[in-house]
Amino acid sequence: MMTHAIYLDNSATTPTATEIVAAMQPYFSVSYGNPSSLHAFGREARSAVDTSRATIAGLLGIQPNEIIFTAGATEANNLAIIGTAFSSGTRKHLITTAVEHHAVLHAVEWLQTLGFDMTILDVDATGRIDPTQVDQSIRPDTLLVSVMTGNNEIGTLQPIAELGRICRARGVMLHTDAVQALGKIDLPIDSVDLLSISAHKFHGPKGVGFLYARKGTDLTPLLHGGGHEHGRRSGTENVPGIVGLAAAVSLALDEQEALAARLGALRSRMIDAVAQIPGTRLNGHPEACLPHIANFSFEAIEGESLVMKLDEHGIAVSTGSACSSPNLEPSHVLVAIGVPMSMAHGSLRVSMGRQTTDRDIDAFLGVLPDVVSELRLISPFKVGE
Amino acid sequence: MMTHAIYLDNSATTPTATEIVAAMQPYFSVSYGNPSSLHAFGREARSAVDTSRATIAGLLGIQPNEIIFTAGATEANNLAIIGTAFSSGTRKHLITTAVEHHAVLHAVEWLQTLGFDMTILDVDATGRIDPTQVDQSIRPDTLLVSVMTGNNEIGTLQPIAELGRICRARGVMLHTDAVQALGKIDLPIDSVDLLSISAHKFHGPKGVGFLYARKGTDLTPLLHGGGHEHGRRSGTENVPGIVGLAAAVSLALDEQEALAARLGALRSRMIDAVAQIPGTRLNGHPEACLPHIANFSFEAIEGESLVMKLDEHGIAVSTGSACSSPNLEPSHVLVAIGVPMSMAHGSLRVSMGRQTTDRDIDAFLGVLPDVVSELRLISPFKVGE
Repeated sequence: MMTHAIYLDNSATTPTATEIVAAMQPYFSVSYGNPSSLHAFGREARSAVDTSRATIAGLLGIQPNEIIFTAGATEANNLAIIGTAFSSGTRKHLITTAVEHHAVLHAVEWLQTLGFDMTILDVDATGRIDPTQVDQSIRPDTLLVSVMTGNNEIGTLQPIAELGRICRARGVMLHTDAVQALGKIDLPIDSVDLLSISAHKFHGPKGVGFLYARKGTDLTPLLHGGGHEHGRRSGTENVPGIVGLAAAVSLALDEQEALAARLGALRSRMIDAVAQIPGTRLNGHPEACLPHIANFSFEAIEGESLVMKLDEHGIAVSTGSACSSPNLEPSHVLVAIGVPMSMAHGSLRVSMGRQTTDRDIDAFLGVLPDVVSELRLISPFKVGE
Repeated sequence: MMTHAIYLDNSATTPTATEIVAAMQPYFSVSYGNPSSLHAFGREARSAVDTSRATIAGLLGIQPNEIIFTAGATEANNLAIIGTAFSSGTRKHLITTAVEHHAVLHAVEWLQTLGFDMTILDVDATGRIDPTQVDQSIRPDTLLVSVMTGNNEIGTLQPIAELGRICRARGVMLHTDAVQALGKIDLPIDSVDLLSISAHKFHGPKGVGFLYARKGTDLTPLLHGGGHEHGRRSGTENVPGIVGLAAAVSLALDEQEALAARLGALRSRMIDAVAQIPGTRLNGHPEACLPHIANFSFEAIEGESLVMKLDEHGIAVSTGSACSSPNLEPSHVLVAIGVPMSMAHGSLRVSMGRQTTDRDIDAFLGVLPDVVSELRLISPFKVGE
C-alpha cells in the first residue's frame, strides 16, 4: 500500500479523517438499528440521523428538513435536476454551463431525450460565466439554472450571489454543485434553491452526501419506496455514513478559514514555481479560484504520461476530473476555456487537502521540472511548435 | 446504548459483523483513492472494487460485469424497474404482486403516472402467487414481471424458478427483490434477469447493495454522470462499502447451510410456543418460508403496543416492515393475505440473524405470554370478539 506517497489529488477524493472514522464506528456493530424501527435500537439510530441533520443545518444556517441525505453528489445533482424537471409542469427549459461536472451535464442531456430543452452557456478564458448571459437566456418556460460554485478541474469560482439575484428576480430556480467548495469558501446557500454536497471531498466517507433543497422546492424522487427523507429519497438511512458526513462538515467548517489561507498560499507558491518552467500555463482564474486546486498545462507532453511519471516518484496528481480519467478525450472544461488542443492534452491538476504539507509541495516542485524535461526529450512534439 | 438488549429485528437491519467492519477499515484512511484515478492510490482502490466484484460474481456464478453496485436495495429495485421501463420501447406493461416491498410497488406506481400500465397480482392466504396467473397476465406489451424471492414481513417464498420458465417462454424479463434471501436460501439467480441485494440485511454495512442485471439487459441509468459501473450507475464508488458488501456475501454464503438449519429450528420452536397462547395466528406459509422470519397476529392487541412493551423488556421486534413503521396503517402484506383487520393491527414480526441464540428466543418466549395477557387486560377489545 502506498502509505508513504504524496497525495495531491484531493479533488478526486480525500482520506477520511481518523476522528471521523472513529465517530462512525459505533453505528456499524453497536448502535446498528434501522432508524425506522420503533424499539430502542431504532430510536438510537434515528437520534443519530436527527442529530447529524441538525448539526449540518445549524452550521449552514438552514432548516433540518431542507437536507436530503443521498449516496453522494452525483445522486444529489441528479435529484436536483431530474427531480425538479419531473415536477416542472409546463416549464421545460434548463440552463447550465459548459464547465459543469458530468453529473450535471449528463443529467440535463438525458432530460433532452425526454423532450426538455437546454441552453449551455459558454465561459470566458478563465472559466467564468457572464451573469448577463444567464439573464438573457431565461425564457418564460425556464425551470432551473444549474451553475457550480467552484470548478472541480480548474477551481474557478462562479458569481453565484449575482446569479441568485437574477434567478430570484426572474422566478427561476437556481441549483449549484458545491462539492469542491465546502470547507474551502463560504457556501452561497442563501443565494440558491438547491445545493449538492459529497462527504468524501472534505475528509468524510465515500457513499454519502446531501442535497439542500430550500423549503417549498418541489422535487419528484429518483428513488421510490419507504418514504424516507420526507418522501424525497427512499432507502434505509446510511447511519454511519450520515454520522461521518456531519462530523466532516463540522471539521471542515471549523478549519475552513485557516485551511483556505494555508492552501491558498501553497497554491500561489506552486503557480509561481510552475511559471518558471518554459511552455507552461495556468488554467483557470488566477484569483477567483478555490484555494486548493491548481491546474496547469504543459506544451508537448501528454497529461497521462506526466501523471504516471510523477506516480513513479510517489506523487499522486491527476489530469483533471477523476470521473473522466479512463477517457482519453481532452477535458471538456479545458476545451470550454479555449486551451489549445495541444496543451489541453498536457494538463495537470494538483489538488490539496487538510493533510497537505509544505513539504509535499516542495517534493512535487522538486521533481516536476526534471520530469517535464525528461518527457519532452522523448516527445514527438516540441515546445513552441 | 442498548448493547445488552435482545435484537430480533434482523429483517429491518443487522449488526455489521466485526470482521466485516475490520475488512472495510483500510479503505477509509489508508487505501482511500478514487478508483477512477490513474495513480497508485487510484489503482489500489480500483483493485479493491474489482476484487469485490469478482468475489461476489464467483460466489453467485455470474459475470462480474453483471453486477451494478448501488446505495442499497431501494436503488437496485428502482433501477431494475424504472431503468428497464425507460429502455422499454413500446412495451408499457408491468406485472407485480400485492406483497412486494414499497421500493417495488411505489416505483411501479410512479411509472403509472408516466403512462405505464400495471397489473398487481393477488396472493393466497399464505402469501404465494399463482404462476398461472402470471402467465395469464402477460400481454404482448408486457415488459417486466417483478416478484420478490422471500417476503420481508411474513417470509413466504415465491415460486421464482417456475416464474422464470414462464417469463423466458413468453419473452418477458423477470426481476426479483432477493433482499431477505441471501444467506438464508440459494438465490434463484439462474431464473431471473434482474435481482436486488442490500448488504445491511446480512451483516454488511448500510448504504450499499447491488443489482444483478443479466448480460444484455437494457437499463437506462437513474444516476447520470461520470459513467461508472459501465455507464449504468454514475457516482464515485463507495469503496469501503463495496469491500464490506463482498465480505458480507462471502460470510453469508459460507454460513448459509448451518445458519438456515439453526434458525429454521428456532422458528419452528417459536411457532409451536406462540400457538399455545390463545387468540394468535401465524401469518405466512408454514413451510415455504425463509428460515429467519416469523410473523404472528394477536387478537385484541395493537402491534405497536406489543413492540413497545417488549422493548421495555429489552427485546427488539417489529410490527412488520421497518420502512413503514411510522405509518399506523395495517401492513399491506397482511391485508393482501386476508388477515382480518382486527388481527392485522396486532401483528408482530420476529426476525433472526447469525448472532441470534437459543437463549434470545427463550427470553422472548419467556416474556411474551405475560406481555400479551397484560395488554389484553387493558384492551378495549376482547379475544374472540
